[in-house]
Amino acid sequence: MRTQVAIIGAGPAGMLLAHLLHREGVDSVVLEHRDRDYVEGRVRAGVLEQVAVDLIDRLGLGERMHREGLVHEGTNLAIDGAMFRIDMAALTGGKAVWVYGQQEVMRDLFDAAAPRGIEPLWGSEDVALHGIDSATPHVTFRRNGQEHRLDCDFIAGCDGFHGVSRAAMPASVLKTFERVYPFGWLGILAEVPPADHELIYANHERGFALASMRSATRSRYYVQCGLDDRIEDWSDARVWDEVCLRLGPVAAAKVTRGPSFEKSIAPLRSFVAEPMRHGRLFLAGDAAHIVPPTGAKGLNLAATDVIFLAEALADHFRTGASAGIDGYSARALARVWKAERFSWWFTSLTHRFPDMDPFARRMQMAELDYIRGSEAAQRTVAENYVGLPLD
Amino acid sequence: MRTQVAIIGAGPAGMLLAHLLHREGVDSVVLEHRDRDYVEGRVRAGVLEQVAVDLIDRLGLGERMHREGLVHEGTNLAIDGAMFRIDMAALTGGKAVWVYGQQEVMRDLFDAAAPRGIEPLWGSEDVALHGIDSATPHVTFRRNGQEHRLDCDFIAGCDGFHGVSRAAMPASVLKTFERVYPFGWLGILAEVPPADHELIYANHERGFALASMRSATRSRYYVQCGLDDRIEDWSDARVWDEVCLRLGPVAAAKVTRGPSFEKSIAPLRSFVAEPMRHGRLFLAGDAAHIVPPTGAKGLNLAATDVIFLAEALADHFRTGASAGIDGYSARALARVWKAERFSWWFTSLTHRFPDMDPFARRMQMAELDYIRGSEAAQRTVAENYVGLPLD
Repeated sequence: MRTQVAIIGAGPAGMLLAHLLHREGVDSVVLEHRDRDYVEGRVRAGVLEQVAVDLIDRLGLGERMHREGLVHEGTNLAIDGAMFRIDMAALTGGKAVWVYGQQEVMRDLFDAAAPRGIEPLWGSEDVALHGIDSATPHVTFRRNGQEHRLDCDFIAGCDGFHGVSRAAMPASVLKTFERVYPFGWLGILAEVPPADHELIYANHERGFALASMRSATRSRYYVQCGLDDRIEDWSDARVWDEVCLRLGPVAAAKVTRGPSFEKSIAPLRSFVAEPMRHGRLFLAGDAAHIVPPTGAKGLNLAATDVIFLAEALADHFRTGASAGIDGYSARALARVWKAERFSWWFTSLTHRFPDMDPFARRMQMAELDYIRGSEAAQRTVAENYVGLPLD
Repeated sequence: MRTQVAIIGAGPAGMLLAHLLHREGVDSVVLEHRDRDYVEGRVRAGVLEQVAVDLIDRLGLGERMHREGLVHEGTNLAIDGAMFRIDMAALTGGKAVWVYGQQEVMRDLFDAAAPRGIEPLWGSEDVALHGIDSATPHVTFRRNGQEHRLDCDFIAGCDGFHGVSRAAMPASVLKTFERVYPFGWLGILAEVPPADHELIYANHERGFALASMRSATRSRYYVQCGLDDRIEDWSDARVWDEVCLRLGPVAAAKVTRGPSFEKSIAPLRSFVAEPMRHGRLFLAGDAAHIVPPTGAKGLNLAATDVIFLAEALADHFRTGASAGIDGYSARALARVWKAERFSWWFTSLTHRFPDMDPFARRMQMAELDYIRGSEAAQRTVAENYVGLPLD
């Protein structure tokens, strides 16, 4: 087998890249360890920045998103129950975010793939990268009991934090930066209408909570929990009680309780690998960086990574130029670090840290109080939340 | 002896309060442990917010300040040597800060005091507060070997962090919040022209540095140093070398070296005591709160405390109302906490912390980079730096 770009992983980064390259007339082959149901079924991100929405539109995949997605022009912060709204649209010249789950994005990407000749090789096992330092890299893998070799010009590592791509970079060139947070998020999905038409991020004495949604009839709630907590510790009743307590009485009065049909605990991590390119290998999305979910930057960063990468690759195949390829890592990382900062800051501002002294707690309160009273401070939240401009 | 308000301490808070009360026709007596030369000679703050400038004008003490003070409409940040300017005036509708040292402010306050009947009782020792829970408090002290008793309606504790006033509050009502930073500031004064007409705050791999000044011919430089460093470790040559390294080559080229005539090491601390009033005792300035010097909020907070306090006391003596007195602590603290947040944030952003991991360092870089590129972020710095509005 031979292709121009071997894409490792059929998650958001890999599939968005495959569609982008297709549009530019660049061939690619997507290798995916799992099957479509698994990848599409993963409950992940729920909020798209304008830049991701624009990308999906540009790829001709926006029809259902426009019909079913919820446009949010503001978001809410609650401090020990006292709530205020940040009018993102007013503060950013009309920008907004869209509530449209990663599951929906994946479905749209997969549904449109085959007609475009994009057919992920599901169940590709033992993927290994070879010759990334040479001009003729290749990928080997096993599928349906057969060994395969895929020759290519470039490899795009879109296989997530635990994937093989980053590990294929020589340790001597790779620098990693990491922060593991001393708490997790317990999340539930329930078929109940959301508490508010927009999100509510709550910093409460007892910890963080987030009232979110997937649609007008499906709610997503999170509460900060201990790293050692088990799902069994969190009955639905306990989750709802804790959500209501942390959101405060005004928001709690609008919460509709119901049985959860999904419940999971996720750790929070900040992670960045530098560089995002070595030789003929490029990293994109979670393979290169992880953000804590606060502020919902993960999927959006994957989208901007592959916008930059597709642009660089298309330019190279069209003109032979290497400036775009050579600049990819620096260009992507400049935006990544800003999003890492925002996600870290928003997490630090809204969560209860086990080692927090009373002064640190008051710094959170004072900062939230400052944001409530300052248009400039609200604008910094808004412009990061809707997504900084692509440079 | 009898007066309406016994003021403990003849520093900025105490003397500004005495002048403010005089203007309102309220009697006060100022007790000061030290002598005038000592108080006036202390090298402390150097930057006045507009609100402090306005106060000094309102007290009819601004003549020399307007002649000798330097108006700064911007300030500079340097990241590992790369410098950018924040145009404070443009970002805040024309507000600025003034470089006019605390020594000068004290001189003006003292020079104008006697003609107004304000005569601090220098050398007042063993000051003790009595009956602050009663309607008839009094203060005892020893002066020139004589025991004295000062009866009063109210006591204003303006005697700084180590003073007796805060300690006179019952431990059961007092809550304190504190952060001690794991480094100090080594500061020098030298009779050389400043590197720039505005300040330069530098975050460098080797630590924080600040290029400041007292006048067009007198410079003030600071470098972050270890808590265990001794003055003897820091020859003038070492200080200048370190200043130039940390400011970076562009600013360093403008540094004029010269012998220091003052050199000292100060620790950095955040501290707040709540409440700022108990019974007939009010705290103001450093007696109630300390900020790290980054951003120069200390003297300015003292000024706003006493503006609020003088207003409350004058209203009480004029009308018998107690609303102002009862609201003083909450009103002052709301502004104090915002300034504490800004000082803590600005310190956290610009200093090298011993326990900093590579991720934390990148968060500083990403935040400075974000500030450089975002008008909204620059506006948050500017509006805090020139001073948030009085509420």
